[in-house]
Amino acid sequence: MPVRTITHMTDTIGKPSRRSGGRATRLVKRASKPVIDPCPPGQIGGAYRPLSESDLHRIYDTALRLLSELGMGEVPDRLAQDLLKAGAEDDGQGRLTFPRSLVEDASAKAAKTFILHGRDDNRSIEVGGNKVYFGTGGAAVQTLDMDNGLYRPSTLADLHDFTRLQDTLANVSWYTRCCVATDVPDNFDLDVNTAYALLRNTTKPTATSFTLAEHIDPIVKMLDIAAGGDGAFSKRPFMKAHISPVISPMRYGEDAVDVVYDCIRHNIPMSCITAAQAGATAPATMAGFLAQSLAETLASLVMVHAIAPGYPMVFSNWPLVVDLRTGAFSGGSGESTVLNAASAQLSNWLGLPSGVACSMTDAKAIDAQYGAEKGMSSLAAALAGGNLIYESSGMTASLLGASFEAFVLDDEMHSNTYRALRGIEVSEDNLGFEAIKEAVLGAGHFLGGDHTITAMERDYFYPTLADRSEPRTWAENGAKDAWTLARARAREILTTHHPEYLSTDQDAEIRRQFKIL
Amino acid sequence: MPVRTITHMTDTIGKPSRRSGGRATRLVKRASKPVIDPCPPGQIGGAYRPLSESDLHRIYDTALRLLSELGMGEVPDRLAQDLLKAGAEDDGQGRLTFPRSLVEDASAKAAKTFILHGRDDNRSIEVGGNKVYFGTGGAAVQTLDMDNGLYRPSTLADLHDFTRLQDTLANVSWYTRCCVATDVPDNFDLDVNTAYALLRNTTKPTATSFTLAEHIDPIVKMLDIAAGGDGAFSKRPFMKAHISPVISPMRYGEDAVDVVYDCIRHNIPMSCITAAQAGATAPATMAGFLAQSLAETLASLVMVHAIAPGYPMVFSNWPLVVDLRTGAFSGGSGESTVLNAASAQLSNWLGLPSGVACSMTDAKAIDAQYGAEKGMSSLAAALAGGNLIYESSGMTASLLGASFEAFVLDDEMHSNTYRALRGIEVSEDNLGFEAIKEAVLGAGHFLGGDHTITAMERDYFYPTLADRSEPRTWAENGAKDAWTLARARAREILTTHHPEYLSTDQDAEIRRQFKIL
Repeated sequence: MPVRTITHMTDTIGKPSRRSGGRATRLVKRASKPVIDPCPPGQIGGAYRPLSESDLHRIYDTALRLLSELGMGEVPDRLAQDLLKAGAEDDGQGRLTFPRSLVEDASAKAAKTFILHGRDDNRSIEVGGNKVYFGTGGAAVQTLDMDNGLYRPSTLADLHDFTRLQDTLANVSWYTRCCVATDVPDNFDLDVNTAYALLRNTTKPTATSFTLAEHIDPIVKMLDIAAGGDGAFSKRPFMKAHISPVISPMRYGEDAVDVVYDCIRHNIPMSCITAAQAGATAPATMAGFLAQSLAETLASLVMVHAIAPGYPMVFSNWPLVVDLRTGAFSGGSGESTVLNAASAQLSNWLGLPSGVACSMTDAKAIDAQYGAEKGMSSLAAALAGGNLIYESSGMTASLLGASFEAFVLDDEMHSNTYRALRGIEVSEDNLGFEAIKEAVLGAGHFLGGDHTITAMERDYFYPTLADRSEPRTWAENGAKDAWTLARARAREILTTHHPEYLSTDQDAEIRRQFKIL
Repeated sequence: MPVRTITHMTDTIGKPSRRSGGRATRLVKRASKPVIDPCPPGQIGGAYRPLSESDLHRIYDTALRLLSELGMGEVPDRLAQDLLKAGAEDDGQGRLTFPRSLVEDASAKAAKTFILHGRDDNRSIEVGGNKVYFGTGGAAVQTLDMDNGLYRPSTLADLHDFTRLQDTLANVSWYTRCCVATDVPDNFDLDVNTAYALLRNTTKPTATSFTLAEHIDPIVKMLDIAAGGDGAFSKRPFMKAHISPVISPMRYGEDAVDVVYDCIRHNIPMSCITAAQAGATAPATMAGFLAQSLAETLASLVMVHAIAPGYPMVFSNWPLVVDLRTGAFSGGSGESTVLNAASAQLSNWLGLPSGVACSMTDAKAIDAQYGAEKGMSSLAAALAGGNLIYESSGMTASLLGASFEAFVLDDEMHSNTYRALRGIEVSEDNLGFEAIKEAVLGAGHFLGGDHTITAMERDYFYPTLADRSEPRTWAENGAKDAWTLARARAREILTTHHPEYLSTDQDAEIRRQFKIL
């Protein structure tokens, strides 16, 4: 089991802050007693298997049949040439079909594990196997205002704030811009300023979206400045791209495919995300949904294989669900819980680095609905072994909203999930026959014994936001709910954590070349 | 998969109410459009297996070794005689040890499945196999007041109210008195009035605790009145007893053992509950905890076997956790989540009807902490296949509190859990190759098609409390949180649902014989 020394508040400190070094130093001091995190990110999943072996085969076979008989529509010319070269077939009716052997070849040659680099290498993570990491996906268009508890359009200032907030949260293992700066109307300015917000406020592995392929060249120049010079970023890319090259059902999207080509040219790792919606763009039957969505994500993989075999791609097969009553997307449900878990199981079973989503509550308030929907879907996705679990932090309102309070609460929730995921180590010492015998024949209890203290320090997670006091103490302390406690914590972090991970020179150079808002 | 027709509000209507027949009739009407519940109680668990096969064997072997080498202390004389007759051995130092063969014999002869009867037979459930049912455990001493959002001592009036509230909730599959009437100081009056509250307000399978064995005879007389005459209750018992015959670590409790003997005499099914606390009365190491707690619950089973082989006993092996920082019990954690799931897996692996606990949040407020802790532990216990999942509804504050709002929220959460548990049915029709082909080559979407509508009605759960509206609509409707919505729902039910499941004659007869407060 991975164990590492952490201080949740100081996980934040990568490079020294130029504006608030004093504050950062105080933070380090305050949290300086090293604590063993009993349940760090990267715990091993797979103990929950919603699909039987035969289910897995049937869904996979149906996906292969969809690709070989129905194939993909609207294939951009450049991609069509590459796909045909790799073994795809033209059905003569405007669609390219993929023989089973092509898909299996793409799977076999796919990158099974790879590193998502942080600018701070201590924050890099390895994707693949059964390792589980929570991270973000984006992209909310509204922010839950901490002052009035209502939603308002998300801004670039919010994006900076969210980025530096999550920089302190150990359980956001990679950070995708979680909201869209709706106050930046121009798409190029938006992409540029989004990338800048990430560079300035975090050294974790990051991710973003490119509205158009032509934005990539200039943004890579900005990333090169942060990386230390021309071409430096591509040698050790610390930002991946979230792309949806497939439009459900079963066709490619030209703009996104263009982005794919340019990402590959710059060695930007990709999360190719299929975001079909059950009952709208994919079947409402869950088995059918999984078959189509698997076929579509395999179509992304075949695309990558045709362009650059073995290129790092997170196989991001996200099941989304709509509520029949309204036609609106709903993220907080038992359906969403089991579908994302099943998707993770499918991808892992194929040996591909899996990406699914969780914690996508429909709640607007930071309330009991919020907690229950997030708790269930997070645990399921993690137990099923989802490698990268997107949308897991800070998101509310069916992915329309992002919330500062949510980020800090979700961080603690993920520790509980990782703790559950870590499981139970069965060893002679842990079985403790002798310790039990001693307690039974001796003191009659286990309080304070070495066996107890050691285990409590090594194996138990102690929350700092969750209130475990008894009702009277809780009332005496103001009968606060989790939303209130989280707001105070978020405010404290936003007041104290101003990391600024760009040097003065880097920042000046970026501002010289780009319109930083 | 079990499917049944429900209307969540009218699941409540067993016998007609004598006081509010008109209201009840209106309720039936309002909810009269039959809806197929896609995820009723009794879904099949087992897809989550926190322990490997080798883990299971090692824990079981350690439990057997504890019983055969260390055995049980403080065995009451009557029980000692029965145990020795069954094959236990006196270690000459005040403890009885159980040879492996005795434990295996008790397991082999144990009741593997049995019915928990409701007075309304439509509400009976079968315990065992991998069927999962949520229910209550008790016993809170404080009630979350709906008027001021703070806790106060629980009363007999609360118990009546909780009982009739849960009577309307489909996902409380059996009902144990969830709170203690702290305004009834005399123990006999307490036991009598607790049983009366259950009789009057629900026809589900019920459960209670008996403070002393001598309370059982008179209470069975009361149950007989409700059942229709002398001896009628024992022929078809609709109330089980929650008993903790073992005091951790590894000794029997005399009063509880007396209760066991009298329950068996009256054919009252029993939940024999081991409630060891990790780090206090059992090892803090999770494997050691499970070994000892399993040994202790097996000691209850051997006890039952020695008295009446095959007598119905729910093998209730509950892992509880203490927070090292305070020594207080904590129910809302990753540790608690994985331990209860592992315990369910262990009991099911042994083929015994498993009882575990979940949804035991430490939160006092009905807030995000509440939801996350409940969501995680409920899902884990259910996925692991816990047959009877206690404490799952209405409980707050580390089991110190009970809440009306919590009951209605938990009911909806359990539907989501059951929905996840139901899993994904993989059939030719569900895989939907033809439906996908038709959508791809035709309309380009799946909205409104027969394949979609059928699945949406058959397979999807539609919540009525969870808010799925977008932020603007939510704000226009008052920006309500789940606590507020649940309070309104609970108040509505308490205003309208006055079932009174005792006839006028039965009620008068009970009041003639007992001091009903």
